[in-house]
Amino acid sequence: MKKLINKAEDLVKEELQGIAAAHPDLVKVHYDPNYIIRADAPVKGKVATVSGGGSGHEPMHGGFVGFGMLDAACPGAVFTSPTPDQMLEATKAVNGGAGVLHIVKNYTGDILNFEMAADLARSEGIEVEAVVTNDDVAVQDSLYTAGRRGVGVTVLAEKLCGAAAEERRPLKAVADLARKVNAHGRSMGMALTSCIVPAAGKPTFDLGDDEMEIGIGIHGEPGRTRMKLKTAAEIVALLAQPVLDDLPFKTGDQVLAFVNGMGGTPLIELYVVYNELVKICAGRGVKITRNLIGSYITSLEMAGTSITLLRLDDDLTKLWDAPVKTPGLRWGA
Amino acid sequence: MKKLINKAEDLVKEELQGIAAAHPDLVKVHYDPNYIIRADAPVKGKVATVSGGGSGHEPMHGGFVGFGMLDAACPGAVFTSPTPDQMLEATKAVNGGAGVLHIVKNYTGDILNFEMAADLARSEGIEVEAVVTNDDVAVQDSLYTAGRRGVGVTVLAEKLCGAAAEERRPLKAVADLARKVNAHGRSMGMALTSCIVPAAGKPTFDLGDDEMEIGIGIHGEPGRTRMKLKTAAEIVALLAQPVLDDLPFKTGDQVLAFVNGMGGTPLIELYVVYNELVKICAGRGVKITRNLIGSYITSLEMAGTSITLLRLDDDLTKLWDAPVKTPGLRWGA
Repeated sequence: MKKLINKAEDLVKEELQGIAAAHPDLVKVHYDPNYIIRADAPVKGKVATVSGGGSGHEPMHGGFVGFGMLDAACPGAVFTSPTPDQMLEATKAVNGGAGVLHIVKNYTGDILNFEMAADLARSEGIEVEAVVTNDDVAVQDSLYTAGRRGVGVTVLAEKLCGAAAEERRPLKAVADLARKVNAHGRSMGMALTSCIVPAAGKPTFDLGDDEMEIGIGIHGEPGRTRMKLKTAAEIVALLAQPVLDDLPFKTGDQVLAFVNGMGGTPLIELYVVYNELVKICAGRGVKITRNLIGSYITSLEMAGTSITLLRLDDDLTKLWDAPVKTPGLRWGA
Repeated sequence: MKKLINKAEDLVKEELQGIAAAHPDLVKVHYDPNYIIRADAPVKGKVATVSGGGSGHEPMHGGFVGFGMLDAACPGAVFTSPTPDQMLEATKAVNGGAGVLHIVKNYTGDILNFEMAADLARSEGIEVEAVVTNDDVAVQDSLYTAGRRGVGVTVLAEKLCGAAAEERRPLKAVADLARKVNAHGRSMGMALTSCIVPAAGKPTFDLGDDEMEIGIGIHGEPGRTRMKLKTAAEIVALLAQPVLDDLPFKTGDQVLAFVNGMGGTPLIELYVVYNELVKICAGRGVKITRNLIGSYITSLEMAGTSITLLRLDDDLTKLWDAPVKTPGLRWGA
């Protein structure tokens, strides 16, 4: 295991210390329980957006805390759900009196714990809505999931709902927006290599020197199929076609295309992937009008990529273009 | 070799096609010769900043073209200097009548070719200044370099000079600023793994499963020493102490700390590195007042990190904070 870490058990704490030291203008970090909130929380009269999940997917979610995106993020141990007390404390810390939206990726532990935290928050008089993302078309059920996994759409929902909350839209509207984003988005990923969970010290799965896994989950959960390595054009087709077919995306649709790196894949390759995706979408009459290219929802040092397409309308486009100021995503501010 | 590419010989062209498709609002791409210019080039009356170098270091340099940073970037083949005709054509394309600054990393091929391009541009009546960066303290001479290598400071110089050019400072002032940034900045890097140049198809160097290389160059050039893997705290000390000692940075100095990922290193590790760097700088009385954390000057999929410190003053801080709008670096716009 070759990583820039100290002790495995200190990794998340030290990462949080690094984030706190680097971005005091944007976020505040609370320890025991661990959560990250925007520096100016709570924002009075604004719906607060909260997400969370296992660590190891950085910048998601902690890197998306700040103006125009998340009010709070709860990082669990690596690839492990955060606990209800983290979520409850974060929810209370960012509640500005207009209610709190929990954006929850569909993993069994995340859902159970966020449900418990929401119940506890409600018992303290805080209005909470929860929306579950489940955009991964690769497999119906998975190692940690009943139903589809929540992946790339989560990042987009956090940005879009954050922008809507900044406009002071009410809780019901922001929650409905999250449901709409999830309903209109689809994703699929692949891996060239496994990653190593520090506490385990060995690869999560084995992949031959000439093999790749199509439909992988962000914790290395098995995908659809393992096969010999192919060209970028062939790989992107294997990801994009199921994504396009599933919604389905149709001729004339305008979409946001999100090409994500899994953590160990350099940007030069992501632009090659994007180039192939543009051709496939054009062949289907689907027009990419916005894009996001980079490593935003990662699996430690896994090499690979995922593709997310989100059908846009004027409102979503406007919310996407709105200013955002977080450690991991920033424009217009 | 596991990469998301098609044919090795098409990699740079397809990457450029991806960049062109993704960012038409920010940049324009020219092929044969290959260069990237800002979408609104030439900007009349503004000094134009041009850089370039081998591909494989993305987002540097092409990802830094846009408002407030570079006017043009010339990408060579992977880890190979661009040619004088690329640099000449790019220089002519962005010349807005106020002169052109070439920001050149200290590699023998880059320097020779930029010198030739500058001479040719001058013979066509364009005022050109060139500044060479050589901030890497690891080794005195290297595989492709007489004198120190130019690395992380180059990214900072591009941002700072771009901001100065937007203020309509004259060519001499922008060139002097680049020299000042280089004089006040120092860097050193390390690798946990090699990378594979696609055309070669095998690792640039061999590193044992329990080894790392301290002082590595961005093309995998040998560094200071190869040793057994250590903790993040020890590794950061091995990088930061020579950097601090070299300038030297002194008690009371305010610095920009740039923690860079080499391409295959995930963000979670870079925050651990930053956390260690904060402690070491604090121990020396050096205050980090600005930071940049992410993979900005990469070596394909190499795993590792580099640390750059730049001594700041009020002018540099103001220029750093100025708006920038490029594919790879963006804030305030």
